[in-house]
Amino acid sequence: MINKKEIQNQMIQTVETVRRTNPMAGSITNTVTINFVANAQLAIGGSAAMVYLPDEGEFLAKVGGATYINVGTLHPIYEQTLPRTVKVLHETRKPWVLDPVAVGIGMLRTQLLRQFKEYKPSVIRGNASEIIALAGLWGLEGGVEVSNVRGVDSTDSVSVAKAAAVALARWTGGAVAVSGKTDLIASSDLVAFSYGGSHFMEKITGSGCSLGGAVAVYATAASPFIAALTATAVYNLAGKRTENKVEGPGSFQIQFLDELYKATAMDISNNPFDIEEV
Amino acid sequence: MINKKEIQNQMIQTVETVRRTNPMAGSITNTVTINFVANAQLAIGGSAAMVYLPDEGEFLAKVGGATYINVGTLHPIYEQTLPRTVKVLHETRKPWVLDPVAVGIGMLRTQLLRQFKEYKPSVIRGNASEIIALAGLWGLEGGVEVSNVRGVDSTDSVSVAKAAAVALARWTGGAVAVSGKTDLIASSDLVAFSYGGSHFMEKITGSGCSLGGAVAVYATAASPFIAALTATAVYNLAGKRTENKVEGPGSFQIQFLDELYKATAMDISNNPFDIEEV
Amino acid sequence: MINKKEIQNQMIQTVETVRRTNPMAGSITNTVTINFVANAQLAIGGSAAMVYLPDEGEFLAKVGGATYINVGTLHPIYEQTLPRTVKVLHETRKPWVLDPVAVGIGMLRTQLLRQFKEYKPSVIRGNASEIIALAGLWGLEGGVEVSNVRGVDSTDSVSVAKAAAVALARWTGGAVAVSGKTDLIASSDLVAFSYGGSHFMEKITGSGCSLGGAVAVYATAASPFIAALTATAVYNLAGKRTENKVEGPGSFQIQFLDELYKATAMDISNNPFDIEEV
Repeated sequence: MINKKEIQNQMIQTVETVRRTNPMAGSITNTVTINFVANAQLAIGGSAAMVYLPDEGEFLAKVGGATYINVGTLHPIYEQTLPRTVKVLHETRKPWVLDPVAVGIGMLRTQLLRQFKEYKPSVIRGNASEIIALAGLWGLEGGVEVSNVRGVDSTDSVSVAKAAAVALARWTGGAVAVSGKTDLIASSDLVAFSYGGSHFMEKITGSGCSLGGAVAVYATAASPFIAALTATAVYNLAGKRTENKVEGPGSFQIQFLDELYKATAMDISNNPFDIEEV
Repeated sequence: MINKKEIQNQMIQTVETVRRTNPMAGSITNTVTINFVANAQLAIGGSAAMVYLPDEGEFLAKVGGATYINVGTLHPIYEQTLPRTVKVLHETRKPWVLDPVAVGIGMLRTQLLRQFKEYKPSVIRGNASEIIALAGLWGLEGGVEVSNVRGVDSTDSVSVAKAAAVALARWTGGAVAVSGKTDLIASSDLVAFSYGGSHFMEKITGSGCSLGGAVAVYATAASPFIAALTATAVYNLAGKRTENKVEGPGSFQIQFLDELYKATAMDISNNPFDIEEV
Repeated sequence: MINKKEIQNQMIQTVETVRRTNPMAGSITNTVTINFVANAQLAIGGSAAMVYLPDEGEFLAKVGGATYINVGTLHPIYEQTLPRTVKVLHETRKPWVLDPVAVGIGMLRTQLLRQFKEYKPSVIRGNASEIIALAGLWGLEGGVEVSNVRGVDSTDSVSVAKAAAVALARWTGGAVAVSGKTDLIASSDLVAFSYGGSHFMEKITGSGCSLGGAVAVYATAASPFIAALTATAVYNLAGKRTENKVEGPGSFQIQFLDELYKATAMDISNNPFDIEEV
């Protein structure tokens, strides 16, 4: 029997621990949204650091409470940086979040994402088509080799990725967050649906990336599932609150960061969600 | 005889097609303004994706409706990425927009821009000094080998670049957009002057780059000349509307994205412009 | 006897010269905050340009009035770019600002920062722990080999870095700016304390980097000490003015850029500071 109240208590503790301890979550992430990722991590109470080089990735992996890896704009050096970094994360049992942006495009991206299977990311965050494609790449249930990948857009609704998300979570022993109109968060035996957000989140770049960065911050203080659910909840809450205050995507980004900063632990835990066993 | 009404109708169709179809325009662009480029592309209804690696550039070229190439902050790998990407664009007859930022600085930049001559960008966008310098590099009329290039600033008024712009447009068979207080858009046989904008556009970074990204989005749905004119018109309109609402360059950027998002097709087509035959 | 009025007059002249002449200060800086650096430089009246490649760094060094070097997110090519660029700066006696972000992390960073000792940056800007660590790396008084470096956060108060700052300033013959709640600016024989700012400056990314970029802009028109003090003063003034107008870190960034733009030379020179001889 799932105890929703217990989950909410864990969310509250996660938010408060992060605000109190200002944990560092390093990132290796794309240059398009790197600034927004860092500012979102700071807004929820974390600390950010970004690097490109192999030994710096290893260093961040060791000293950070968790690490965010986004394969958005790959540099040649990432052929060394990413495997070495995730190897350290795996060996030190540090939580890490994988954002398999645009899985299926390019040789290096495919090679890296294939390697990551053995290093079992604690949380995988993507839109439905990316989650399905990653499960396909890893030969897991619910995946297909070639998804309907179209830039970084979500072109499938989250429910179509449920089987893939659960299969990935069972493989990693962690959690999977599927972003969409409703968001789905899967662990080995639970699936949560989180509600809220805004249509403007599709009209700015970096909603998904910065959510991944926020998951990494919360993962310093919570289980993968609670970290993913808490980050998704504060995003849905802040998105909904922001939408009514702005007239366009420029203002949305700014007000959204303010709402991330202002959201209380209680409000975040009370953002609507449902849970089911799988 | 030029029919201005017909041009306006094409602008309206372009804006509406983009808003309805959410076309993808990939970019290889500088890291200074990459976020602003993506957000501007999304604000006008397009979809964005950015890459650095050669095979990813080729992939974007193939799947995107158009591509934006900005030589602002070159990485070593661009020696391979950019020629391979524009070769695919040329062979598949996909529209692409070239932003010859800081032409004249550095060996790789000069080498790449020289190579691009054969691949005939559909639209070239730059300030007057860059357009003159590019025409000079390509040995075309109106160009000079060394322009008054000063960082990424415009130091010449657009009218001095008219001959170079027309010569470039005649060479490529496409269009050239020269950014300045008044903006000039040239095709092989027409020159348009577009009015509006704001003095704040010189006080933020990325006005020009993001305009280039917007041209690429419209180029998925229109001729090079109409794409360049439409993007310039919405920039001039949004700039003018924003200026009266803000007190500084920070607010300008944000409100400007909102105005890009809110501008109607009718308003964009009615933004003041003149046309002359050449 | 220190003449505070004379210092204020120099600050006024610096601000006004920059606003009148729009000087170019090139940067090689990290991708996290590169956009904010450029926009801050523009907001105070400067002009910005960023590059990665060795010959482009040399070019910027030659044509810019000053250069900003931030070792935040190192690329492999920086092993060549940074030494070649600072060599030109040193040989041409052009002012340059060093931001030793995260000194102590990674082999290339350590190698580069060690090399920079001979090229004597005109201004070094960092938080207390970075200044202490750099003095340690260079074997100067007040430094320790391993500081309490934690990402890019300041974990020490500025006063603990006073001896290190003065030692660095005496080595370079320039100035050192230590960022914290109160900011410390050291030259060979003077230390200034500058007051103001906002707690939000810790809640956004890039306060420090963009301050470094602003110092470079002012260094085109003033001595290292006056440049560092003027930039710190406008940051403290704009930070304080912004704090009361905003509710979160998103709005803070935007309004802060507006306040940088609006601050008058007189207001900047009157922002509270103290001076003492050392």
